[in-house]
Amino acid sequence: MKYLFGADIGGTTVKLGLFSEAGDILDKWEIRTDRSNGGENVPADVVKAVNDKITEKNIDRKDVLGLGVGVPGPIKADGTVLKCANLGWGIFNVTDKFTELLGLPVKAGNDANVAALGEMWKGGGMGYQDIVMVTLGTGVGGGVILDGRIRAGEHGGAGEIGHIRVNENETRLCGCGGHGHLEQYASATGVAYLGTEAAKKNPDSLLAKEPAISAKTVFDCAKKGDKVALQVVDDMCEMLVIALSHVAATVDPQCFVIGGGVSKAGDILVDTLKKHYGKNMLNALQTTEIKLATLGNDAGIYGCARMVLDGAK
Amino acid sequence: MKYLFGADIGGTTVKLGLFSEAGDILDKWEIRTDRSNGGENVPADVVKAVNDKITEKNIDRKDVLGLGVGVPGPIKADGTVLKCANLGWGIFNVTDKFTELLGLPVKAGNDANVAALGEMWKGGGMGYQDIVMVTLGTGVGGGVILDGRIRAGEHGGAGEIGHIRVNENETRLCGCGGHGHLEQYASATGVAYLGTEAAKKNPDSLLAKEPAISAKTVFDCAKKGDKVALQVVDDMCEMLVIALSHVAATVDPQCFVIGGGVSKAGDILVDTLKKHYGKNMLNALQTTEIKLATLGNDAGIYGCARMVLDGAK
Repeated sequence: MKYLFGADIGGTTVKLGLFSEAGDILDKWEIRTDRSNGGENVPADVVKAVNDKITEKNIDRKDVLGLGVGVPGPIKADGTVLKCANLGWGIFNVTDKFTELLGLPVKAGNDANVAALGEMWKGGGMGYQDIVMVTLGTGVGGGVILDGRIRAGEHGGAGEIGHIRVNENETRLCGCGGHGHLEQYASATGVAYLGTEAAKKNPDSLLAKEPAISAKTVFDCAKKGDKVALQVVDDMCEMLVIALSHVAATVDPQCFVIGGGVSKAGDILVDTLKKHYGKNMLNALQTTEIKLATLGNDAGIYGCARMVLDGAK
Repeated sequence: MKYLFGADIGGTTVKLGLFSEAGDILDKWEIRTDRSNGGENVPADVVKAVNDKITEKNIDRKDVLGLGVGVPGPIKADGTVLKCANLGWGIFNVTDKFTELLGLPVKAGNDANVAALGEMWKGGGMGYQDIVMVTLGTGVGGGVILDGRIRAGEHGGAGEIGHIRVNENETRLCGCGGHGHLEQYASATGVAYLGTEAAKKNPDSLLAKEPAISAKTVFDCAKKGDKVALQVVDDMCEMLVIALSHVAATVDPQCFVIGGGVSKAGDILVDTLKKHYGKNMLNALQTTEIKLATLGNDAGIYGCARMVLDGAK
């Protein structure tokens, strides 16, 4: 039996997974991310965690195919990180560093991209090899998988779907300094903002009676039939569809996979997206599949492990 | 010496080229496109043209690596054409049909995509392997080349950049039925429209004194310093940059290559695009190169020949 390791490095914890070559998860665990001294201990900590697991499970090192590493920032196809503000890392080659420490093959990718790869392999995008995943969390991330591999992009910026401008009339600023970006509408923060504004204008709505308005309360009220909340969901999905239509006109994927905390809303999200999808697009592009992600927070470790099998571009 | 053939099939003529394996053009010629009976004679006519050239040049058949075919419509990676309204073709596999008739390896691709591949190989995108070409002609076409290969897309719709919506406030309809699409501003027709409208509002401008306003007159007047024409060029480039920014956020290419008749305007076009490029985009994506296409109408035959070397995805 051959083994794969995945390590999805976040600002607070590193999620780790041990997989069979076929993609069955055999073990998963976490370690704390040590951000002291510009995150310099992170590579050694991760490698130690992997080595400890090899020992604990009594695995023969020659049966380990390698380690995939996900990092929270832009990373080029050759493994060079450009900036990981969350970790304090400067510019260096992650693949080289981890390979040197571990002595086994290592592949590295951006966290949103590895999550997309994980969903393609064992999640909502299973059965496809060309998918685009959109992660609706605090922000909006994205990952583009073409021919079964991560598309990193020349500047590590492929799949930055959250910063596609979807509303040129928007005056509010996005976190990145732009305005009218998808993230301002489709992130958890964005949905909460839209919900709060709608509640102010409609004090008699179910939504307005909520003590605090989050993305979850917006979707919960919508499911109860509150027209104001339903309109917020509709508006948010319309913005998301605008971005998806731009992505489709560029790479024409087989399937969009929607993940992140907001996607826990479930079918209402996919149904509303499908209602709008196809508007204002060429006929040829109107039939792309839209599915929910299924791996949750484990998508990253799955994708990390998968990178070892395929390499990443 | 090994040889490659390229055949770029258009609605009126088929452009053909004979190339060395290294991409030197050895001969080029044209035949008429016979659209009678749903274009059924086109494959045999093209194959005859290739066979005649092999005989004429006294080439040993075993030295011919193959034929690349460009078709004016969406085509899937496996060679299936979905619709070629210009030719009258129904759904069939172009690669299989031509291979059967020619008895040599055949690859097929969409005409805008093969032009992009040609520009990557021997034109404005030389030296890069990830380029996106935008062809500003009667309409606006596009081609996405990743890792040196055509990205066709699940429905043959990758690179349909002309139908990215760039102005949600537009009321005029695009040819495809949508509204506010790039093609309405950045095609030759689009620039002429913008120029005509601007001239009406500014009867004292140099542009308004032109007997007929085309994209060329708009650029010519702009080069002479006419403020009204300069504003039209600026507006058109701003729309084009919006679409390019969506493309960059999706695939993050190394270089954009601008071709088609409108691109004959030259440096003023690239300079104005560069002035706007980067606005409202993530920092990481702001440094993508923008270049003019250099192969003109030959881009297609170059790209067709190149497909034979690399295959197409």
